[in-house]
Amino acid sequence: MYYHKVQYYETDKMGITHHSNYVRWMEEARIDFMEKLGYGYDRLEAEGIISPVVSLSCDYKKSTTYPDVIGIEVKVVEFKGLKLLLEYIMTNQAGDQVFTATSTHCFLNENGRIIRISKDKPEFYEAINKGN
Amino acid sequence: MYYHKVQYYETDKMGITHHSNYVRWMEEARIDFMEKLGYGYDRLEAEGIISPVVSLSCDYKKSTTYPDVIGIEVKVVEFKGLKLLLEYIMTNQAGDQVFTATSTHCFLNENGRIIRISKDKPEFYEAINKGN
Amino acid sequence: MYYHKVQYYETDKMGITHHSNYVRWMEEARIDFMEKLGYGYDRLEAEGIISPVVSLSCDYKKSTTYPDVIGIEVKVVEFKGLKLLLEYIMTNQAGDQVFTATSTHCFLNENGRIIRISKDKPEFYEAINKGN
Amino acid sequence: MYYHKVQYYETDKMGITHHSNYVRWMEEARIDFMEKLGYGYDRLEAEGIISPVVSLSCDYKKSTTYPDVIGIEVKVVEFKGLKLLLEYIMTNQAGDQVFTATSTHCFLNENGRIIRISKDKPEFYEAINKGN
Repeated sequence: MYYHKVQYYETDKMGITHHSNYVRWMEEARIDFMEKLGYGYDRLEAEGIISPVVSLSCDYKKSTTYPDVIGIEVKVVEFKGLKLLLEYIMTNQAGDQVFTATSTHCFLNENGRIIRISKDKPEFYEAINKGN
Repeated sequence: MYYHKVQYYETDKMGITHHSNYVRWMEEARIDFMEKLGYGYDRLEAEGIISPVVSLSCDYKKSTTYPDVIGIEVKVVEFKGLKLLLEYIMTNQAGDQVFTATSTHCFLNENGRIIRISKDKPEFYEAINKGN
Repeated sequence: MYYHKVQYYETDKMGITHHSNYVRWMEEARIDFMEKLGYGYDRLEAEGIISPVVSLSCDYKKSTTYPDVIGIEVKVVEFKGLKLLLEYIMTNQAGDQVFTATSTHCFLNENGRIIRISKDKPEFYEAINKGN
Repeated sequence: MYYHKVQYYETDKMGITHHSNYVRWMEEARIDFMEKLGYGYDRLEAEGIISPVVSLSCDYKKSTTYPDVIGIEVKVVEFKGLKLLLEYIMTNQAGDQVFTATSTHCFLNENGRIIRISKDKPEFYEAINKGN
């Protein structure tokens, strides 16, 4: 579980967390998930791999605000080597789900070509599927 | 058409616009759309209405970066008075689609209760459906 | 000491942390400092006090980037009850100073009037000066 | 004069523009100023020059909020070829000054070495001093 404390600068004049920040927290939790597998974005970039976001789908269930602390769970839904589909569940201190989402990612080499991780980085491929 | 120039502070170390910013541009274009109908968020708030985001679905098709200028089209897909479903198409200077998305919004009164715009604010309801 | 891990979304296309984020980390560390004194912004707001930033002065000494972890020290330079002058020293993992700054804050009541904390909230006044 | 419309996502739960955004608007206006001189950051980067922020000094005079439109004036205070000192004056629709600031910038080549613009890019040096 990754934890993010809502910052004052993440709220808006409605008095709640601005919805765009959840997309940033998804990235925070995803990077933390990758780092725990031994594959931080800095390592991926050092190995010439970048991993752009292909799509997002987000459901806002309950508002949050400063100074809430949000627990974020990340799970691999599917990864056959080309597109990584992740799921996110965010929960507030009371245990209520506040936000759920999925994101899809691909992997590019230094020339911007899509690579098949299962073939080009088999240990990374296995690490992700074990991380599930 | 609403235009947003990509700012330097919106890029990330991949050299491209960070994906979370598109969600902010959706809001910019949506607010512009509402203002052109005569219903800016400041007017809605003055009338005791807030309109939170219920869900988002985003497809990243082509990267953008500083100093691109992105054209953003907003369309009403469906609005029967309760949930407003909007569609966004973002295009770069070359005319390529870079991002498409939908967002769903509801409307709350000052007590946080969901309201039916078709009943409680009929002129606003008609304005949105005409804006389409 | 407060710690902030540089997030990927805080970097820019120069490959380093965008300079505007340090101003946000100042707020994070300041709020943490206040919370440890028992006066989080949520408590201040509940007591009808808001505390806007009056001025900032920032020196950027060394760049940082994802995934650096930045240590942030906050100290009270002067507080006679009207204007709070704080100092910030940010240090990277290697112990190098990366950023130093000061900020000045005043305190307003619910009517937007400046209040003298030493008179209106004497315990808060003492807590800040002890926190030093 | 450069204009920035305050976005909803730039406000915070105090109901006003979060103070960190003014630092971003300074960058927007500075880049616009440079572009009008024919030296956008994209051109500088293409020529192998990056220009980090060395220091900032900011005075917050009046709050702003969505949907204010802020006029931003940028002036060269001093540029002898090494450090560029700029001044910013931000004004609201009513003509009131809301924010004033200065920023200092240096210029680095691709190896991260400080360069003297007056010597290495004399036309750029003259353009800035004429832009004043």
